[in-house]
Parts: sequence; structure tokens; C-alpha cells
Amino acid sequence: MRKQIILQAFDMTAAMHNAHGLWKHPESRRHREYKSLDYWMELARLLEKGKFDAVFFADVLGVYDVYGGDEAAALRDGVQVPLNDPAFVIPAMAAVTNHLSFAVTVSTSYEQPFHNARKFSTLDHLTNGRVAWNIVTSYLPNAAQNFGLEKMVKHDERYQIADEFLEVSYKLLEDSWEEDAVIADPNSGVLVDASKVHRIKHKGTYFSVEGPHVSEPSPQRTPVLYQAGTSEKGREFAARHAECVFVGGPTPEKINYYIEDIKARAEAYGRRKDEIKAFTFLQVVVAETEEEAYSKYEDIKKYWSADAAKAQYGGSTGYDLAAYENEEELFTYKHTEQGQSRAAYLTKDAARPFTVKEIHEKFSKPAEMDIFVGSPEQVADQLEDFFVRSGVDGFNLTHYITPKDLQDFVELVVPILQERGLYKKEYKEGTFREKLYNRPYLRSGHPAKQRKRS
Amino acid sequence: MRKQIILQAFDMTAAMHNAHGLWKHPESRRHREYKSLDYWMELARLLEKGKFDAVFFADVLGVYDVYGGDEAAALRDGVQVPLNDPAFVIPAMAAVTNHLSFAVTVSTSYEQPFHNARKFSTLDHLTNGRVAWNIVTSYLPNAAQNFGLEKMVKHDERYQIADEFLEVSYKLLEDSWEEDAVIADPNSGVLVDASKVHRIKHKGTYFSVEGPHVSEPSPQRTPVLYQAGTSEKGREFAARHAECVFVGGPTPEKINYYIEDIKARAEAYGRRKDEIKAFTFLQVVVAETEEEAYSKYEDIKKYWSADAAKAQYGGSTGYDLAAYENEEELFTYKHTEQGQSRAAYLTKDAARPFTVKEIHEKFSKPAEMDIFVGSPEQVADQLEDFFVRSGVDGFNLTHYITPKDLQDFVELVVPILQERGLYKKEYKEGTFREKLYNRPYLRSGHPAKQRKRS
Repeated sequence: MRKQIILQAFDMTAAMHNAHGLWKHPESRRHREYKSLDYWMELARLLEKGKFDAVFFADVLGVYDVYGGDEAAALRDGVQVPLNDPAFVIPAMAAVTNHLSFAVTVSTSYEQPFHNARKFSTLDHLTNGRVAWNIVTSYLPNAAQNFGLEKMVKHDERYQIADEFLEVSYKLLEDSWEEDAVIADPNSGVLVDASKVHRIKHKGTYFSVEGPHVSEPSPQRTPVLYQAGTSEKGREFAARHAECVFVGGPTPEKINYYIEDIKARAEAYGRRKDEIKAFTFLQVVVAETEEEAYSKYEDIKKYWSADAAKAQYGGSTGYDLAAYENEEELFTYKHTEQGQSRAAYLTKDAARPFTVKEIHEKFSKPAEMDIFVGSPEQVADQLEDFFVRSGVDGFNLTHYITPKDLQDFVELVVPILQERGLYKKEYKEGTFREKLYNRPYLRSGHPAKQRKRS
Repeated sequence: MRKQIILQAFDMTAAMHNAHGLWKHPESRRHREYKSLDYWMELARLLEKGKFDAVFFADVLGVYDVYGGDEAAALRDGVQVPLNDPAFVIPAMAAVTNHLSFAVTVSTSYEQPFHNARKFSTLDHLTNGRVAWNIVTSYLPNAAQNFGLEKMVKHDERYQIADEFLEVSYKLLEDSWEEDAVIADPNSGVLVDASKVHRIKHKGTYFSVEGPHVSEPSPQRTPVLYQAGTSEKGREFAARHAECVFVGGPTPEKINYYIEDIKARAEAYGRRKDEIKAFTFLQVVVAETEEEAYSKYEDIKKYWSADAAKAQYGGSTGYDLAAYENEEELFTYKHTEQGQSRAAYLTKDAARPFTVKEIHEKFSKPAEMDIFVGSPEQVADQLEDFFVRSGVDGFNLTHYITPKDLQDFVELVVPILQERGLYKKEYKEGTFREKLYNRPYLRSGHPAKQRKRS
């Protein structure tokens, strides 16, 4: 059987995610409806109809306030603001689906591991094992200010905190409750066997958590772990912990390089290469014919907002494009202070430095190199070619006009991919991890499984 | 028209809430099903059928480990453990109802105001204004240990933290986004008017939060505010902030005393007496006939667990009943270190000190003084009498066998209360606050409304 594409919808419970300016498009519904349960339940049904593996929710904890020195541009075009907490749409979306899984972003820089463990145990119970945690360390300076810090913690220390956060999480989720702790035997009168529930007694550099965990073991225990770091520290972290990684880059070959690099690092940590699945971003403009697709694309361009793109770029990279001269060159993005995002790759992975003028120009329209435009067959061809050359396991599908772009993809592209054997016709049974890896829990070589009970 | 009873189901997303030992009853489903969305959606439909105003979710962030010096007794009978995060069942319950509201407990001692504000804005959006926040400061020593503290913060300082937490919350929820900040006008290209979104720049003793809030104004902005404190500090806090208070006591008259006391304090803060609604706990055992009801009650007693009751009492009061001699008297519960709970009233409001032996005896069966047992007419009579004498506005209905006790109440008691004009036959339209108070937002005299924009 051919290797099959794993497909995720990339989304955010915000008025707008990264379709800069497209809220103005007459068919865009999300900026009006993202606040309603009905919108998200309809989306869930659509994605399950299209046999999507998961919906992946990005998140931020502040505003993009670098471009122009404040958040005015971000607000004007709704760049990831207004924004709701993504975790709360999951239960309603789960209630109307059976197989679709849900990856949600939580930052280790601004959350407490005890809260977080209970949150994921709860979601994993309620969805019957259909959740994943996208681990981020947060890149927005404003987020730090919202949690009592004058300045962001430095990039490398954020990953040290993240490492300890994960250690505490594993102790709570994997070690605290033994598999058969819940007996619920009315005859003996024992609901929980107290000898099988353990305090974790964690005392570390950043966290002190006594335990026990309060939630009983959920179907997956630890949610499926996602990570998107492409900095040196980020890749090390992904290699140690992640089951799914996000990799961006200017070419399929560059993406393949990152994938192989992370997998090699994972092996150095005693993990197996096939314990990690790699995803990249995918943007599609598809219609019945090539001509219609390009006309749709021209229509999209009309609504594009360059300012919104620059606002996101500013928050993601730390570069305020309004503060540089046109001929200045920006090459190495400030990855020691910021995280990484799609926009950041523009300067990070380019073969040569870009001048600020060139970057301004690039943001004047949707980034064409990342978009597959065409008829259903043409899009499927491009997608298949990219899939084979890059070696990715799947895609995070973004969308300009929501939910229409996803509807079009489900109706026009999915059947062709299925026909070619590149995409499943039916879901596998089981939890998200069982669907991805044919096992309920993390492997024994994973750091989640490497502690001895004291 | 007669004053009508406001009715809430008192619940917890745990294997067991406070029906000590009743998980062993053959008709009890909750300890098996509390982890599933279907269970909570079925419950939501039942409560809306019974025209309940709200479901109220208690919460704790640790285990009850005082009784006997550890959590063994609590685990054995599932005393509020295993436990999930209550907020995540709300979206699914909201999806299958139109009027039922949802009060959820969040502790100001272990949460960040920025996270909390976004959580409630999100829930308020998704439910169309059907959420309330039960503000607690947490009483379990183990909870403190789960959030990095060696010992609990002292009771009075917990309320100082809570006051500042509320101040930050009001700034985020009420002040940060002006009413007409979201324009979404495709012609001008403005989604959000940046001049109407403000940073809050809060720098206080316990919190430093820059803002702006990331969520746009929700239907209620600030969720309906609940508070259950009956300590001196707790009542002051309730008088300043709360729209709904919980009051317990050994007699309707004692409850009335507390209600009047809190309302008088509210007036001293420039609020109106009718800005506060008071609730007390209600436990009912009802069947078609008196005889069947008493036989049901005898059946319940068979499954009662005294150890579970003592475990909850220990965590709530700080008294380990296993550590005192039988003849010792316990009168003043340690309200400076602990919070308050139903169990605590036993020693707190008693007319005379109880000996430890007497308390042990009381916990040997369900607390009869708090339970209305009888035929539907008899229960309605008792309930009406209590309602009139205590002056409460409503009840928090607890249950031994879930969901059966609630089904019985809906089928047998609700129609009689409706017939007597004591209970609504139809819901009012609008948000939870509109249903309770005929207004969308908090009144101008409330501290949420008392800051000037700088």
C-alpha cells in the first residue's frame, strides 16, 4: 500500500488566522461566526466527511504589537485577534464526530503543569482519546506582559522550562495512577485502590508539584505530542518529545532536510525514526477548472492585506518592517528571542538575504510559492509531487475563505487523492495515537516512559 | 406573581461529589459515566426539560488528605476524585440546550487572571451568555502543593489576592474593549477599530497584566458572579462582588440571618439588596408515595459511607477526626485556614460544641436535617416552607443517585411547584443575567463598573 497523506485542518478560534485581509471576502464567514458553537460543529462534520485526521488549533496569548510599534495594524485586520480559547470548542466538535481528532496549542511558558495535565486528561476522556497537545514556548512579547513578566524569558531558557514542564506532565499523566487503580467494586466497597495512586513529589527548578494527579488515566494518558520548533533548541526538544513535528521551508528538499535532521536527533535519544511524523503547511486554491481556480485566486488577491501580513511577521520574528530602511538586508531572524512561524521562514531559510523592500513586496500578495492553484487534478498532482519529494507524512491545510475553501477541498481534491491510494477512504478505529501509530501509549523508549516509580 | 424558586443542579465532573458511598448503589451511573460527553449532554437535556436555571459545577484542585493523614479514605470512596476539569463539559451541554446556564468554579489562588478572562469570554460567547463564575479561594492544602506552594496562603490573604484578581478581571472584561470596537466593515477595511481597544496596564501587588484583552466583548462581558464564602472575609467579598451567594446553616432562620447580613454589607458598598440572590443546598428523596420515599431513603442509607463523609469533612475543615479523642469538643472550625463546605456547617453553626464522638455519629448516616423525604406533595410542602422561612431565592439541588434523583425531581416535584406558582413554566429569553436580573451587564454601582479609563 502507498504511504498515505495525513491531513489536518489548520485553524484558530479567532476572527482570522493567517488569511490576511480575507475576512473582507463576501463568502468569508469565520470572523462573524467563530464565536458560535454551530460554526465549529458544522466544521467538524465537514472535516469528518472529508476523512480529515485532525483539526489543529494554533493559539497565542497576546497581540502582535511589533509592526509599527503597536497592535493597531493587527487589530485593523484581525490578525489572530479577537481570539477565544481554542480548547472549549473541542467538546462540542467531538460530540458530533467519531473519528476527527483535535490538536490544541498550550504554551509551557504561561501555564501550570497541574492545570494542563487535568485539562488534557479531561479532553482525552471526553473525546475518547482524540486529543493532541501542540507544545509551544510562545513568541509574542505581549504574552509575557500578560503574565506578569516585564520581558520574555530568553528562548533557550523557555525550552529548559518546557523540558521540566514535560517531565512534570509525564509524572502526572503516566506515573501517578496505575492502570488498574480504578476498581469500582461495590462488593468490596472500593472505588479506587489507594495503593495504586501515587504522589509525584516533583521538586524542580521551575515547578514544584506534589500530586497525585486528580484525573484517572484517560484513553491515551499523554495526549499525542506535537511540536513546531525549528530552532536548534526547538529541534532538540522535538527530537526528545514530539510524535508529530511541523516543518516549513522554501522547498520540498529543504523540508526533507529538516525532517531527516529531527529524526536523526531522535535516534540519538534512543527513539526510532518512525516514532515521528512530519507535517508541513499546505494552501490550496482549487475549482472545477484551471481557469476558475485562477480567477478565484485573483479574487482572493483583491482582498489581501499586506499590513496584516507584516503585523504577523513582526510578532513572529521581532522585525518591525516599518522601522528599517528599504535597502537594509534581513537574513537571520531573531530566533533566540522569538519563536517561529510561517512568515518567519521567509527570512530564515532564504538562500540569500532579502532587502526590506523585497520583503515588503513579498507581503503585497499571498506567498505564491506556497500555494497550489488549479483544477482538482492539477492540485492533486502538485500535492502528490510535494508529498513524495519532501518526505512529509502529512499536511496542515490552511484556508483563505472559511469554511468554503475546506468544502471545496473535501469535494474536489479528496476523492482524487483517495482514488490514487494517497488518502484513506475509511477511518481506522481507535484513539488518535492508535490511528497514527497502532499503539495506545507512547513507546517505552520515550522520555514519558523512562522514570522509575520511587 | 409569587416569588419563584431559582433552581440549580449542584454537580461536579467527578466520580462522586458529596453522595458519600452512593456510587455503590446499583442505579448510580455517574462514577462510570462522568468521563463521557453523552452523560453530560443527557443531563443537560433533562435539566432543561425540568426548567432548571443552571447547573453548578463545584471543583477542587487536589485530594482530601486530612482524614487519617492521607488520601486513602477519599480515594477508596471517590470523594471528589477521580475528577475532571468541569469547564470542558459546558460547550457540549450548551450545544444541546437553549436556556440552561452553567456556573463553574475557578479558584483565584491558582489561576492567572489573563487565562481566566479568556476562558470566561470564550464560554460566554459559545453559550450565548449562559455562564457564571463561582469564585473560590480554595481550601485544600494539597491544592497549594500542586501549584508550587509549601503551605496554603493564609485565608485572609487569599481574599486580598481574590480582590485584586477580580479587579484585573473587570479591567479585561469590562474596560479593555469598547462596545463598538468590532466594526467588520469590508468597505473601510476595518475589522476592529484599534482606538477602541485598550491596554489595561495593571500593576498590582499580586498581578501584573498589560493587556489588551484578546477576546471581543461577550454577551454578558463579566460572567454572572457567584461566591460561597461565609467567613467574615468571605461575606465582605461576596457583598462587594457577588450576584449569587450560597448560604448554609442549621435552620432556615439562621440562613436568613446570613442572607440579610450579606445584603446589608452590600448596601454599605453602595450596592442594592436586590442585586444579590441567595441560594442554599437542597437534598430531596421523593417517590410516588411517602412509603416508597422512605423505603428509597432506607436503601440509600445502606450504601452510605461514613469514612467518605469524614474524608470530605477533614479536607473542608482541617479537622482530622481520626486524630482526636472521642470526648474532645470541636466548635469553631478552622475557617482562617480552610474554606467552608456543607460539612463544615456542622461544627460552625451548631448552637453548642459537639464532641468528636457526636460528629462521628452524625457522619454514620446521611444528614437527616438537610433532607426532604416524602411524596411529591410532601416534598413540595417542605420545600415551600423552607423557601418562605429562609428567604432564599433558590436552591442548589444535590443528589444521591445520579441521574435518577434528578429525573425523579423533574417528573414528580417540578409540576407541583409549577402548579403552585412557585416555579416557572417557561424560560425567559436572554442571557443568564437577563434571566436573573433583566439586565445584560452588572449595575453601575458594582465594582466592575467603577473604574475610569485612563
